Amino acid sequence: MQNFEQFLLDNLPKSKSIHPHYEEALQEMLLAGGKRFRPALLLGVVSAYNPLMLESAMYAAYAVELLHTYSLIHDDLPAMDNSPLRRGKPTLHTVYDEVTAILVGDALNTYSFEVLSNAPFSDYTKVKLIQELSHNGGLNGMVLGQAIDCYFENRPLDIENVEFLHKHKTAKLIAASLKMGAIIVGQEELADRLYDFGIDLGILFQIQDDILDVTQSSEEAGKLTNNDEDKNSFVTLLGLKESIVEADILADKLTKELNNFDEKLKKSLSELLTTYINRHRG
Amino acid sequence: MQNFEQFLLDNLPKSKSIHPHYEEALQEMLLAGGKRFRPALLLGVVSAYNPLMLESAMYAAYAVELLHTYSLIHDDLPAMDNSPLRRGKPTLHTVYDEVTAILVGDALNTYSFEVLSNAPFSDYTKVKLIQELSHNGGLNGMVLGQAIDCYFENRPLDIENVEFLHKHKTAKLIAASLKMGAIIVGQEELADRLYDFGIDLGILFQIQDDILDVTQSSEEAGKLTNNDEDKNSFVTLLGLKESIVEADILADKLTKELNNFDEKLKKSLSELLTTYINRHRG
Repeated sequence: MQNFEQFLLDNLPKSKSIHPHYEEALQEMLLAGGKRFRPALLLGVVSAYNPLMLESAMYAAYAVELLHTYSLIHDDLPAMDNSPLRRGKPTLHTVYDEVTAILVGDALNTYSFEVLSNAPFSDYTKVKLIQELSHNGGLNGMVLGQAIDCYFENRPLDIENVEFLHKHKTAKLIAASLKMGAIIVGQEELADRLYDFGIDLGILFQIQDDILDVTQSSEEAGKLTNNDEDKNSFVTLLGLKESIVEADILADKLTKELNNFDEKLKKSLSELLTTYINRHRG
Repeated sequence: MQNFEQFLLDNLPKSKSIHPHYEEALQEMLLAGGKRFRPALLLGVVSAYNPLMLESAMYAAYAVELLHTYSLIHDDLPAMDNSPLRRGKPTLHTVYDEVTAILVGDALNTYSFEVLSNAPFSDYTKVKLIQELSHNGGLNGMVLGQAIDCYFENRPLDIENVEFLHKHKTAKLIAASLKMGAIIVGQEELADRLYDFGIDLGILFQIQDDILDVTQSSEEAGKLTNNDEDKNSFVTLLGLKESIVEADILADKLTKELNNFDEKLKKSLSELLTTYINRHRG
């Protein structure tokens, strides 16, 4: 992922004007690091089938990271999670103010589509990628998940609805990242299979985050932890022990599914996925 | 514009889930009316050159209105203008809460690109439209204007910077609406001329809004008026009388320019534009 970091540095959003901190704020959370999990998934699929396309695929990976970053900035706002820390850094609204955090989030949301629309792909591919990102990151995807998460704070949901919540809030963008990789290399049949795999992966990712939320300090996690007790997290609903059991079951299922993919994909994604799939067994 | 209202009703964002008011909130500000100025401009250009494309052009007009509506919802937030009223209705954050207003804005922003990516145009046209909307509505367009507007509240700017602010905050999306109409009907050379015309039109529109802000009651305007004294409005900077003089000059310039467009375009847009160009003359 070293290449992605370099690509990001070379392609940061630029905006020169009389505003004293707007450009800096646009770049700040992108530069704050993060796992770059979604870009790695997308690039891993592209790398498996057509490494020559990796350079152009960077634009799509960047678009997903832009959308993800905007969502973190807005999730951290005082009206939502009111978080002081993200990616190990003070959140935008604490460094500057709420206005800046709202507008930077808005700008990065829109910019993800500007980047895709100007990326070096055929128009056909661009449109497919924009459909995928907007659908999964939008009103019946990530935003719906966040709306349910916020509304049902202190209103406990059953397991089916908790899964619905996290499928939308977290899993759909992870699934879309894999699928977008498949779209770029023209593996349209594989795209749907990868999407389904990505939904399970996203749910596991969320269960693990919920587990780490109660087992890690804020310093270790780089964000405020032990902050989910009013939330519909898997740990709140199932308890820590049962959540670990659930994570184990899903991790085993995903390991099996991973083994059923073809050799190229396995070779490209196994290391990354095995690390993530077993993250909670740390 | 009766057709556009019907199209909007038939294509409202839908989201069924356990969330008790998310879907309603997504639709509320779209249904609250508004002048539909940007859709009318886009459709007016299409109507001039290829009325058969009006039906598909509705999707693009809708996308612009979605982006514009999200921006109103976020501009009205407590952290920004803290407005109680918009389009004659209570603002979303007063009806529901801030979380809902932030997320609905986010969702409509993304949805505008989902709508364009699924519209009945060629991939070539879709990409051009998405480039245009994201560029003018994004981080070096509308959002930059809003960022400057908010930051420089109570920090008076000179006339050059006030124009820069409103060019970005208001004029670029108006200009993009005209240009997107030209893109749809394949009038690419006209597109840039219409864009420049739209920038002037947008500036005039803003001067008029500033004039109406001090001369209209909140009831007449359907939004909170007499609320701009800390803002870098044209009236704050130039005074009411001088602002009316500036509006007159720009209105005359635009009337002349309008007369230089071809007969088809004049026939299609004259009535709408003449009304708007002379709006401040009551």
